[in-house]
Amino acid sequence: MNSQILRGHIVHAPKLGQLEIIENGCMLLEDGRIAGIWEKLPDAYKDVPQVDYSDRLIMQSFCDMHLHAPQYPMLGMGMDLPLIEWLNTYTFKTESRFADTEYAREVYRRLARELVDNGTTRVCAFSSLHLESTMILMEEFEKAGISGYVGKVNMDRNGSPELQETIENSIRDTYAWLDRCDPKANIKPILTPRFTPSCTNELMAALGKIAAEKHLYVQSHLSENTSEIAWVGDLHPDCPQYWDTYAKYGLWNDHTVMAHCVHSDQRERDAIKAHNVVVAHCPDSNVNLISGIAPIRQMLTEGIWVTLGSDIAGGAILPMMGVIAEAIRSSKCKRISSNWTTDFLSVAEGYYLGTTSGAHYFGGGDGFAKGDRLHAVVVDDRKYIDTARLSVRERFERAIYRAQTADIVAVYGEGKKIK
Amino acid sequence: MNSQILRGHIVHAPKLGQLEIIENGCMLLEDGRIAGIWEKLPDAYKDVPQVDYSDRLIMQSFCDMHLHAPQYPMLGMGMDLPLIEWLNTYTFKTESRFADTEYAREVYRRLARELVDNGTTRVCAFSSLHLESTMILMEEFEKAGISGYVGKVNMDRNGSPELQETIENSIRDTYAWLDRCDPKANIKPILTPRFTPSCTNELMAALGKIAAEKHLYVQSHLSENTSEIAWVGDLHPDCPQYWDTYAKYGLWNDHTVMAHCVHSDQRERDAIKAHNVVVAHCPDSNVNLISGIAPIRQMLTEGIWVTLGSDIAGGAILPMMGVIAEAIRSSKCKRISSNWTTDFLSVAEGYYLGTTSGAHYFGGGDGFAKGDRLHAVVVDDRKYIDTARLSVRERFERAIYRAQTADIVAVYGEGKKIK
Repeated sequence: MNSQILRGHIVHAPKLGQLEIIENGCMLLEDGRIAGIWEKLPDAYKDVPQVDYSDRLIMQSFCDMHLHAPQYPMLGMGMDLPLIEWLNTYTFKTESRFADTEYAREVYRRLARELVDNGTTRVCAFSSLHLESTMILMEEFEKAGISGYVGKVNMDRNGSPELQETIENSIRDTYAWLDRCDPKANIKPILTPRFTPSCTNELMAALGKIAAEKHLYVQSHLSENTSEIAWVGDLHPDCPQYWDTYAKYGLWNDHTVMAHCVHSDQRERDAIKAHNVVVAHCPDSNVNLISGIAPIRQMLTEGIWVTLGSDIAGGAILPMMGVIAEAIRSSKCKRISSNWTTDFLSVAEGYYLGTTSGAHYFGGGDGFAKGDRLHAVVVDDRKYIDTARLSVRERFERAIYRAQTADIVAVYGEGKKIK
Repeated sequence: MNSQILRGHIVHAPKLGQLEIIENGCMLLEDGRIAGIWEKLPDAYKDVPQVDYSDRLIMQSFCDMHLHAPQYPMLGMGMDLPLIEWLNTYTFKTESRFADTEYAREVYRRLARELVDNGTTRVCAFSSLHLESTMILMEEFEKAGISGYVGKVNMDRNGSPELQETIENSIRDTYAWLDRCDPKANIKPILTPRFTPSCTNELMAALGKIAAEKHLYVQSHLSENTSEIAWVGDLHPDCPQYWDTYAKYGLWNDHTVMAHCVHSDQRERDAIKAHNVVVAHCPDSNVNLISGIAPIRQMLTEGIWVTLGSDIAGGAILPMMGVIAEAIRSSKCKRISSNWTTDFLSVAEGYYLGTTSGAHYFGGGDGFAKGDRLHAVVVDDRKYIDTARLSVRERFERAIYRAQTADIVAVYGEGKKIK
């Protein structure tokens, strides 16, 4: 067994709003799994090799529960357009280039690198509709040490001439893709109907059948934008609400990830809760595309499982520390627009949503849980001014608001050092 | 005369919403002043020494029109508290340490460095109430190559035991400070009553008198938060509105800078416009402290002079590119909360507010105006993915959303290279 001790200021969030800090702490890893955390190293382990991060912060790494990998080349651009226009003039064009596998290799290699460099170690990602490029995305994530789920996108209507499949190709490629996925890999497949307007009923039904047959999770979009919701209503006069269009075809299941849920009302939220559907809140994207501000505090009060997503490239912020800060800001905007009646997210709560809440999706425990493979970032904040003898709690908060890529000096994913 | 040519992709904003891009352009500097911008260098200048920034972006540098220098040590912290609580438990304590001049030297030297490193070359800054530390702040800004205004804060009521002056000391120190300011320096004094609740009527009257006597500009806070406004109402039953409390004492003048103006209604906005008062919009601070979202689009439509401020440390973002992005996000939140009836700020508009609009305060022209001393940043974005053959326009937008400190590879202030 390979044992190792990490030393540093350990900061994790076992529960929503609860921050645990072990100043000058020690963490024992056994074969990459957390075997113990102490303020003072027990004598029994004093001969175990140590990595001393000394005055640096050892924090949980981040789970990005919604991102569009093929939109990475347009990250931080096109932000003056609303959702449907943005999709048609920018996004579909960008995604269509992933018919080219060499292009995909280059983009996905760089995306994987930037995710790891910023401490994102687990993802729930959309690929494009292209089978080969989806395989490449999975390979590049795996190679970089990222784990989680990647989905080949299904879309057989309302795309663009360059970006659409026939239903036959969509189903055939989905089966072919699933056959080629390595069941032992850390990157696993997830079914990914783009969103209801992109999929015929027949395709939705076929995907629902595959999900049941192969015990696969599902990810998609829900109630992001009011005109999108109206469009779904037109397409499905039989369904009272947007979520019903997924439920009708067996895609609304335990662990289904639904991005956005900005305009989910009480009935839709009840359905989310009842089916253990996971909300991937994408605060930056929702503001950039002027979709709205999701009622996150309300969802948390109702016991809904809320996680965070960068939603590259509707979101312009790839580092999840930035996404956490935007989630907090969004919740404050919600408080303002509710005439100061809704509570905002504290920094500790935002951190939990970006770490532990997502980790649960991948089978992880609460915070740095014993038995879990280590997912962590090491933050070196010593270049920032500290004339005030800051507490570790304060330095943690400052890291969320201020840390840049270069400040993340080490990253662990699945128990291995990957930066 | 010292002549020089800079080459690169030149991006500037002469007017609100108007972006001018000179791809592979040339800029002639004569003694640090802009003497010409061309797509192709005229033959007459072909022997002038050149600095070739080649494929990098040469953009206007930024004006931070509201920041609290002594709050720098708490930047990115205390964000879970609302304004008045945050002032009392965090801010006043932090500022009181500037009685210590050695401490001030260390903090202000580092602040100046971080501002320049992030491309802020002109400021309108609050110091603390301390005379000696205010001199040190001015020196450190000057040394770093920053220009603009710094104000010794006046506050003789409602402070804390560690942070308050008597009216006599306040007036005496203000005169002493003004006497010591170097009239030839690039950092000039500005009168700075903290805000109405911090100043007795007698102090306000004395400062109004000094402003008139010495032809000084004034900066303060206005209508940031609803309980603050109510408090001002209690303190000044004679004044119909917050701004009247400044106007009454001769502090509401042409070029008075008022930070925030979040809750300024039509009458207050009319008074802002009529007196050529400058609004320093601080989007990040207003959201962090849950103050509200200022009606910036409305103000622009009404012809009000709007600029941007980081409001360190109510704002957690020092780099003005980040503040510009937050101004855009805030305007989008305003659009959402107005049921999609208010226009948001485009990227070009946000950039104008963070550059040219502030530059006007310091006598600068429109964009890279002929005759002006150069204020510029050079952004090296070549490490970001460019598989899509991005236009300079797109790269400019990406820089606003994504550039980190390390990507700003050169900075010019007052015609000199300062990074």
